[in-house]
Amino acid sequence: MKIVCSKEELKKGVDIVSKAVPTRTTMAILECILIDASSDEIKLIANDMEIAIETTIEGQVIERGVIAIDARWFGKIVNDLQNKNGEITIETNEKFQTKITCDSLVIDVISKSGEDFPNIPIIQRNQPIVISQFTLREIIRQTIFSVSTEDKIKILTGELFEISGNKLKVVSLDGHRVAIRNIELKDSYEDRKIIVPGKTLQEIRKIIGGSSEDNTNIFVTDNHIIFEFDKTVVVSRLLEGEYFNISQMISSDYETMIKINKKELYNSIKLSTSMFNEEDKKPIIMNVEDNKLNLKLSSFIGNFDENIDITKEGKNLQIGFNPKYFIDALNVIEDEEVTIYMLDYKNPCLIKNDKEDYIYVILPVNIRES
Amino acid sequence: MKIVCSKEELKKGVDIVSKAVPTRTTMAILECILIDASSDEIKLIANDMEIAIETTIEGQVIERGVIAIDARWFGKIVNDLQNKNGEITIETNEKFQTKITCDSLVIDVISKSGEDFPNIPIIQRNQPIVISQFTLREIIRQTIFSVSTEDKIKILTGELFEISGNKLKVVSLDGHRVAIRNIELKDSYEDRKIIVPGKTLQEIRKIIGGSSEDNTNIFVTDNHIIFEFDKTVVVSRLLEGEYFNISQMISSDYETMIKINKKELYNSIKLSTSMFNEEDKKPIIMNVEDNKLNLKLSSFIGNFDENIDITKEGKNLQIGFNPKYFIDALNVIEDEEVTIYMLDYKNPCLIKNDKEDYIYVILPVNIRES
Repeated sequence: MKIVCSKEELKKGVDIVSKAVPTRTTMAILECILIDASSDEIKLIANDMEIAIETTIEGQVIERGVIAIDARWFGKIVNDLQNKNGEITIETNEKFQTKITCDSLVIDVISKSGEDFPNIPIIQRNQPIVISQFTLREIIRQTIFSVSTEDKIKILTGELFEISGNKLKVVSLDGHRVAIRNIELKDSYEDRKIIVPGKTLQEIRKIIGGSSEDNTNIFVTDNHIIFEFDKTVVVSRLLEGEYFNISQMISSDYETMIKINKKELYNSIKLSTSMFNEEDKKPIIMNVEDNKLNLKLSSFIGNFDENIDITKEGKNLQIGFNPKYFIDALNVIEDEEVTIYMLDYKNPCLIKNDKEDYIYVILPVNIRES
Repeated sequence: MKIVCSKEELKKGVDIVSKAVPTRTTMAILECILIDASSDEIKLIANDMEIAIETTIEGQVIERGVIAIDARWFGKIVNDLQNKNGEITIETNEKFQTKITCDSLVIDVISKSGEDFPNIPIIQRNQPIVISQFTLREIIRQTIFSVSTEDKIKILTGELFEISGNKLKVVSLDGHRVAIRNIELKDSYEDRKIIVPGKTLQEIRKIIGGSSEDNTNIFVTDNHIIFEFDKTVVVSRLLEGEYFNISQMISSDYETMIKINKKELYNSIKLSTSMFNEEDKKPIIMNVEDNKLNLKLSSFIGNFDENIDITKEGKNLQIGFNPKYFIDALNVIEDEEVTIYMLDYKNPCLIKNDKEDYIYVILPVNIRES
């Protein structure tokens, strides 16, 4: 194999596929990046058996071939080579002795045969679900934080993607809160529900361009989901099982509704957590009064007390929350003003806009018992 | 005590003195910042018994007093308060219940009496040694990396400051290499040699403004050194003992002299270390040939080989080095071209300019034995 490419293209490609290199594995071959120049294109591939990423980089294939090269070392060297002038040539003989040359520099290393490298599952691709890269990245950013990080209930480590007609609903929940994003698609598709691993979505968020003009094609099979964007293909297993029915958690009943400046509320709750020390986490107590929201947090360190102006409909109310859940939700909402719906001190509150593009459900802490 | 100040001034001051708050201590009071408003000025003080830092911030003293407040918590809250509007008021009653208010926010905490807080040593200040902030910061940056990090020989954890007439020589060495900076002072001073703890210099480097127009006044006593700059005073203990006599290490004899582009050499040596894995560090072998320097590094991973154009005087030579020591020295040299003087494969090489503003001495690795 002999290929020539620019150092920037190579770095871009290696950075993308590196996201699918496992940090720990018993299969040494998975610690490699596959350089597949078996056709006239240069493809880089990594595969941790849950997610596989393939990306095509620009360059010349002078002699066709396939090699597997240690991902960690190769990533580092490609990064450090960015200082050099000129293109990078990678040349391998039949013993997999590999020569990387750039300018007056020559590096000799041993690579591996690509034969043992696991193939990306070959998947029948039907009509793709089309969504802009921007929207996909935003959906992930606005829901990923409430994916469960515990493995106890495996499906909660993923996100529900529910398609019905031209509507896509994305849901994540971790037992204390729910994040929902509703998106209108350009076309209509067959109804289906799938659960996409949170890790897959995290990695896509890091490597997707995020332009609103460029699209992502999404293909779904019984066991896999494929994301195609730019010159990159991400293939991921789906999580098996039935997702929770969340409709009963999202009651439209409320006794108290407030409108409040998002940034003021976010800053205040964030500041209140400075009263925490490591062992001692306390709820934030919200008192909805006639035209203000009073926020109190008392801890071992001292007392936090702040008032924020609000517009209120309905009853006054005292309710307590884990401040982190409010911070996470407010952090991803773009609106200047948010509307919060509450029933009483023991029922979840909803933060949502009128169109229900987003719904964040947060369970309160029972402050009357504690 | 009651003081009012801007959030920016308070943050600046807290950031500066925090550098002298010990991370671990058996004296709980040292984990505090002292707010000394006993006069019409607001002073912040921290002291880890090796270094004490005092800085004056702008603001109003409405009621005089002194309190000690937990440094970690206070630093965090002052940082988070930067989002708020308006000034910060800190008010303490006789029970040290302290109220921090800003905008509509009120935080109550318990602070401590300042009585137990150790005083900064009171030191007779004679004629100061005057040096620009820029020069002081550069001196530190260009020498601190070769201070010994091991406590075995205590004096090597500090830097020698040697004053003779209007010359200041600063030296650091760790057994493998020496860094020397020679500076001409505007005035002449009494000859003396002192050893300043490396940690003190590290902290000063972080907090000093670094302008070439603003000066630092340095006062030296038998046991202490004081740095005065802007509104800040740093008082540090000196290290006791006799520093190594380095003159014999800096022989002016050489058999080989090369001039080489600094950036090319730096990039090449840095790149060569990508052939390391964690357990397996190898020397870089330099071959001085007639008009080029060949650099080779062989490791478990593979072989690195690069040539760089040079101008040479004297003999050809093969010599091996720990690449890190070259990287550290080249990293702080500002010259585009560096001159390297070598005697043979087992004697130290010198990197220095003609004026000897800087001299870096690096011991070679004996490549003939290994």
